[in-house]
Amino acid sequence: MKQQQLIFNERPNGLPNASTFAIKEVKVGSPKQDQLLLKTLYISVDPYMRGRMADGPSYISPFQIGEPLNGGVVGQVITSESNQFQQGDIVTGMLDFQEYHIVNADQVRKVNTFGLRPSVALGPLGMPGLTAYFGMMHIGEPKQGETVVISGAAGAVGQIAGQLAKRAGARVIGIVGSEEKAAYVTETLGYDHAIQYKHGDVHKQLKQACPNGIDVYFENVGGEIGDAVWPLLNAFARIPVCGAISSYNLKEGERDIGVRVQTYLIKARAKMQGFLVGDYTEHFKEAYEELGKAIASGELKYEETIREGFESIPDAFIGLFTGENIGKQLVKVAEQE
Amino acid sequence: MKQQQLIFNERPNGLPNASTFAIKEVKVGSPKQDQLLLKTLYISVDPYMRGRMADGPSYISPFQIGEPLNGGVVGQVITSESNQFQQGDIVTGMLDFQEYHIVNADQVRKVNTFGLRPSVALGPLGMPGLTAYFGMMHIGEPKQGETVVISGAAGAVGQIAGQLAKRAGARVIGIVGSEEKAAYVTETLGYDHAIQYKHGDVHKQLKQACPNGIDVYFENVGGEIGDAVWPLLNAFARIPVCGAISSYNLKEGERDIGVRVQTYLIKARAKMQGFLVGDYTEHFKEAYEELGKAIASGELKYEETIREGFESIPDAFIGLFTGENIGKQLVKVAEQE
Repeated sequence: MKQQQLIFNERPNGLPNASTFAIKEVKVGSPKQDQLLLKTLYISVDPYMRGRMADGPSYISPFQIGEPLNGGVVGQVITSESNQFQQGDIVTGMLDFQEYHIVNADQVRKVNTFGLRPSVALGPLGMPGLTAYFGMMHIGEPKQGETVVISGAAGAVGQIAGQLAKRAGARVIGIVGSEEKAAYVTETLGYDHAIQYKHGDVHKQLKQACPNGIDVYFENVGGEIGDAVWPLLNAFARIPVCGAISSYNLKEGERDIGVRVQTYLIKARAKMQGFLVGDYTEHFKEAYEELGKAIASGELKYEETIREGFESIPDAFIGLFTGENIGKQLVKVAEQE
Repeated sequence: MKQQQLIFNERPNGLPNASTFAIKEVKVGSPKQDQLLLKTLYISVDPYMRGRMADGPSYISPFQIGEPLNGGVVGQVITSESNQFQQGDIVTGMLDFQEYHIVNADQVRKVNTFGLRPSVALGPLGMPGLTAYFGMMHIGEPKQGETVVISGAAGAVGQIAGQLAKRAGARVIGIVGSEEKAAYVTETLGYDHAIQYKHGDVHKQLKQACPNGIDVYFENVGGEIGDAVWPLLNAFARIPVCGAISSYNLKEGERDIGVRVQTYLIKARAKMQGFLVGDYTEHFKEAYEELGKAIASGELKYEETIREGFESIPDAFIGLFTGENIGKQLVKVAEQE
């Protein structure tokens, strides 16, 4: 039995394109003792994967040319040779991008979907949702009446981060890249205001939208958008730095040049903290329960942008950097059985 | 009786110069009930004062044209109309820059000099020493065996910050601007290594001096020096941001442009935090005691650069930005009686 596998074909210089990827046909294989055969249902494409396409040390190993890409996958157990899993179980893990998987039982975990579509395990109940949770609740710590600004506000992380700040009683302003996203964050998610960065001077727009300054800035974008925020920071502002997507596609030798932040941090006695969801594993369980209940009850909303078919992974990934997705970008590979 | 007063004459555009200042003759006056007549012994000039020379809101009110400059002063009580002070007492406070002062008793506090020259109240036992203490101990939190880098390492704050890190068992690298300062931080202060930023590529020098990366970067300078540090940050690095002296003399409309820090903070999950000594008042007493004992016993060393005479304040201040001082820059105005 043959399947498709997505190969990392070429290191991109700048924005990834079709030749960054290649599709290979490989054999499926069969599970041994304590192994599972999984069918891929959903594949997650995420901006952080761009970092793995560069060579050099980081918190996560770089992709190797000629080897499969790898990331968040939701699959269904087809054959179980483990007493921990049954046929039909929905599981998730960090797996190679291919249609089927032979995995050891400890490489995946069963998903409690709270009755929702299993894709939630890659979005609001997966890495993006937990990232939003820890960044906002453990670093941002929004308080009643404070002003919270979120860049990439309609994205997989931003959509959850902003609602958590609303729930804490803050005034929430989302920075987004389109009319449709502005409507989504204000009408569906309940943010107080949306700023469209393509509508000109972000600093001016922010100044108008934040007459009392900014207490929390949840950073997903960086670049000129971050620069527009610094002069508006209030005393003891917090800046969880989740991402800086505007700089991920710099070409070789280019540096991310802009406003240096030090004087603004001193003036505001502000704290700016980079973080990764993986640093909070000891709190995963409580966060997962809290998010799961809030999402299942409809208290927290979310959106998914889903492309169909294994071969659409490259386009789905590239679209992350051109702002095509609202909420979590996924690729649906197969129907659940 | 007449005295000299230093007036803020003109907002500087770029580096302050002689016309930034003017000297005025004013009357001394005499103290009323609960007031003191003080003679100025030492005046502190500090880089943060440059911020007060700009117009616009900050954590501290801007200097007003035509009004006296103001800052840290150590004085001696000449006449006391307060039962809290006696003639001869050594006191300190934030006072206008002039030779004598009529102050309310609650505007100054008595100095415990631990038997040292009273100027210590403006240096290692004053704002710079306490700033170093809180930045290093409360934000930097150096641990045994970690690597700590300090910019402006031979300055009033840097000289104390680095020794506190050494005392905590860290390996300490100081970035300095001259051969003489390099010798001071390694030979007198006991830092493990000094880097001279005028000797070329700071990033390369740092990489060589920090084979295990950087765990704490105490930021006094900013600019290209900070930029050279970011790629070397270790996981969970801490960056107390005390100052960014390289950017204080930007001309009107100029912005501090350089490497944006967000991606580095994410990679390292690092925390970068601006702070002001005034945020730690509740811990002043314990810090003062600890520093005082360590300085009096000779465990912590310090250096002062002292200019003589009230009229030398402008030159002393300007010299802060051209790197003339080792340790704390002071102006000695009068002899203690």
